[in-house]
Amino acid sequence: MTDEEAIRKLVTTWMDATRAGDGAAVLDLMTDDVVFLVPGHPPMRKADFAAAQKGQAGMQFDGTSEIQEIKVLGDWAFMWTRLRVVATPPGGSKVTRAGHTLTVLRKENGKWRLARDANLLAPVTG
Amino acid sequence: MTDEEAIRKLVTTWMDATRAGDGAAVLDLMTDDVVFLVPGHPPMRKADFAAAQKGQAGMQFDGTSEIQEIKVLGDWAFMWTRLRVVATPPGGSKVTRAGHTLTVLRKENGKWRLARDANLLAPVTG
Repeated sequence: MTDEEAIRKLVTTWMDATRAGDGAAVLDLMTDDVVFLVPGHPPMRKADFAAAQKGQAGMQFDGTSEIQEIKVLGDWAFMWTRLRVVATPPGGSKVTRAGHTLTVLRKENGKWRLARDANLLAPVTG
Repeated sequence: MTDEEAIRKLVTTWMDATRAGDGAAVLDLMTDDVVFLVPGHPPMRKADFAAAQKGQAGMQFDGTSEIQEIKVLGDWAFMWTRLRVVATPPGGSKVTRAGHTLTVLRKENGKWRLARDANLLAPVTG
């Protein structure tokens, strides 16, 4: 598997684990020093991400991630994607958010993980 | 000047040129294949950025950029910053937007330029 193929597989695994509600599997796909940047909030670290997962217990996620570009730079890489996420709270209505992500990835012991991530998703209607 | 110093200087030059309304100088700080990602809009390329500059003629900009991390990877680098931008339209009221950016940079012929940029700024009040 090339690095680019491994990164594409990481994205697929992330989406599958998110759909399956497997929070531990998602956490294993990020580096310990990961930083998530989103609009209107302070930067989130891994512990913040784990706490947010607990707050979303019972929420169902679905979505699609279309990779627009991957550039491998040795043991680092960056990519940007077009992402669409549909979240359905228990007994509630679907909320769809769409937009782009810009992500820095790092290869640790042969395994690619998310290291820095900017998530530009905005709510969409319809 | 180290690569990190050159990237810090690029950020300062960008802010200075923006304050001065020197659109051409800002365009010279990005690669020809630059991609800007912002929430709620399609990706912007260099031509889109230039068109947006023309639409902002007369607008005054001020702001601060605090670099949180720079990582140099050969002729590529990434950084993330905490950014605050104050825009004042002619005869209008100030609009402040704040948040973070995640940026990929590339060194071309010895000069660092912005290559991919995710801008997570959100409006702030007060």
